[in-house]
Amino acid sequence: MSGLTQTANSDTGRTVISVDAMGGDRGPAAIVAGISLSAKKNPDIAFILHGPEEQLRALVARKRNLDGRVEFRDAPDVASMDAKPSQVMRQGKSTSMWSAIESVRSGEAAAVVSCGNTGALMMLSVVRLRKLPGVNRPAIAVLWPSKNPQGFNILLDGGADIRADEGDLLQYALMGASYARNGMEVAHPRVGLLNVGTEEHKGRAELKAAHDLMARNADGSNFEFAGFVEGTDLPGDKVDVIVTDGFTGNVALKTGEGTAGMIGAQLREAFKFSPLSRLAAIMAYTSLNRLNKRIDPRRVNGGVFLGLNGTVVKSHGSSDATGVSAAVKLAFKLGQSGFSERLAARVASAVSLPQDDPTSTSADENE
Amino acid sequence: MSGLTQTANSDTGRTVISVDAMGGDRGPAAIVAGISLSAKKNPDIAFILHGPEEQLRALVARKRNLDGRVEFRDAPDVASMDAKPSQVMRQGKSTSMWSAIESVRSGEAAAVVSCGNTGALMMLSVVRLRKLPGVNRPAIAVLWPSKNPQGFNILLDGGADIRADEGDLLQYALMGASYARNGMEVAHPRVGLLNVGTEEHKGRAELKAAHDLMARNADGSNFEFAGFVEGTDLPGDKVDVIVTDGFTGNVALKTGEGTAGMIGAQLREAFKFSPLSRLAAIMAYTSLNRLNKRIDPRRVNGGVFLGLNGTVVKSHGSSDATGVSAAVKLAFKLGQSGFSERLAARVASAVSLPQDDPTSTSADENE
Repeated sequence: MSGLTQTANSDTGRTVISVDAMGGDRGPAAIVAGISLSAKKNPDIAFILHGPEEQLRALVARKRNLDGRVEFRDAPDVASMDAKPSQVMRQGKSTSMWSAIESVRSGEAAAVVSCGNTGALMMLSVVRLRKLPGVNRPAIAVLWPSKNPQGFNILLDGGADIRADEGDLLQYALMGASYARNGMEVAHPRVGLLNVGTEEHKGRAELKAAHDLMARNADGSNFEFAGFVEGTDLPGDKVDVIVTDGFTGNVALKTGEGTAGMIGAQLREAFKFSPLSRLAAIMAYTSLNRLNKRIDPRRVNGGVFLGLNGTVVKSHGSSDATGVSAAVKLAFKLGQSGFSERLAARVASAVSLPQDDPTSTSADENE
Repeated sequence: MSGLTQTANSDTGRTVISVDAMGGDRGPAAIVAGISLSAKKNPDIAFILHGPEEQLRALVARKRNLDGRVEFRDAPDVASMDAKPSQVMRQGKSTSMWSAIESVRSGEAAAVVSCGNTGALMMLSVVRLRKLPGVNRPAIAVLWPSKNPQGFNILLDGGADIRADEGDLLQYALMGASYARNGMEVAHPRVGLLNVGTEEHKGRAELKAAHDLMARNADGSNFEFAGFVEGTDLPGDKVDVIVTDGFTGNVALKTGEGTAGMIGAQLREAFKFSPLSRLAAIMAYTSLNRLNKRIDPRRVNGGVFLGLNGTVVKSHGSSDATGVSAAVKLAFKLGQSGFSERLAARVASAVSLPQDDPTSTSADENE
């Protein structure tokens, strides 16, 4: 089954990424164009591609730079965009999504990328990869353009679970900090807890409990706890990681997306208004392009599922080649750094920390 | 006490707005400049100004167009920006905020505007004006720039209360729709309930209950219920009113604010990059100005407290003259339309609606 994978993985030293070729709004051609883009930029990457094999082979054959770097796994069915997770579970093994996760489960690939249905991807990932010991609710970590030097902040949970108690929020802090270290080279991440005000007397009861828990665990877990933050800090430089429940996180992300989209549309309209403004737009082309590049959602494409035995990157459903390539890049980076194993060690060490004695032990500093 | 008010209110037919001159970040000079701007544009407006009388008289004397249009109420103390609401309650009657609310309570003014501490203003407003019969939690309604013809959407609750059950959310729908009719001339507002997805099976249990309650009450209460909406719809044109609890609403608003602010800053930076882009910025000046005017938060300044016996407009703490004038304009519009009385009638009629029989009666169509 895996002659080619062996080659890609062991003999060439390439990191193998498992890619679900189906389920994206633009079909498998956009996915193949995306991995071709990644292969062009990165000689150390190889792929296992999941979907209807014949169709995929034809698409890959047209990209010369993918020669010898792609292995196929035939999967005739697609987990559709509007299917409920439970329906996808019933479809099960025949879907490209299931198959793609399987390659991570078996150790053939270092990480998996899918543009498919988020709910279904999360459910299959939990069922097949299983939660890390000590993790109650896995979370989706999303990158958001920010004023920080690394260019992005991490928000979690972006919508895996609408609930989160104080223990879950502490786990999110640990997992988000670990992601910032391994995915973004932030050595000592600053973590904030999202609330409606920064005063300690404000907000919901579980947030006060989570505040205390995070303050007590920060030192031993190699992050700095910055206390409560507000929605305005999401694109700011006060913290690197913002922790909240999946309901609030999802609303915040979508509000930010909607606002950025509206401003972009009005900016384009403003420049179309008169011949002079059209000329100005041409002159300002590089400036506007620079801005666009900075806030282009395709370049921050990839929600990472945290808290599982394996790295799963959810790419946007409407991703084009640029978007898919960004998600693959993220999967490669996390896969290569052994992120999943480091995160597991980090969570395990925090779980063993007696919470009433913050001085008792320290987490694994190898992370 | 009220010779001048009598003149302003009864004899001249002017609508009187009560203004808390203190508590804003820029001091009373910005407030006086703001009401002067309003007086210039609107001959039908008069003011009662609350704060240290001597200081305020000196500031008003410098604005010719305020001659004979301002009455003073001496109040030596200020409800400070970082005071807890309970501290302001203890300070009580001597603050300009208390005094400003008092003018609405007594019927001397049609509405009150304050730039002070939101929590304190809400607490004093609830204590002095009292909640409308049938209202459990008052809400803060905030305007947000949108693609709709009226230019703005209404979001509530923007942060008055971090909790809201299904009954509260129905009240918010009624109050928000009433605000859209009276403050923005939207005859039959479309109301959406904020959730993490638009499918009916998604989200928290209380949201499903609120969904059903709103669907049953929409016809009798003269609004169209559009079902669940997402964060992306906040600046969109799918609905006119978006209903959520004060925690989620506050996070959404602040995330939108932060995102708009970050893009604005990067846009300015992009245009400073090179001599050519600086020239382009000059040429694009009117286009950028048009955009700026559309998304300028100062022009949508004013959170309205809904659910009280009287209209209270909270202006941003950092409001300059333009911002104060926008808040005064909103207070004038709502005060003149008899919004507070209409809202009371609307809420009362909905409360009397037996919720298990949606066909039994209909709300007051005079609203």
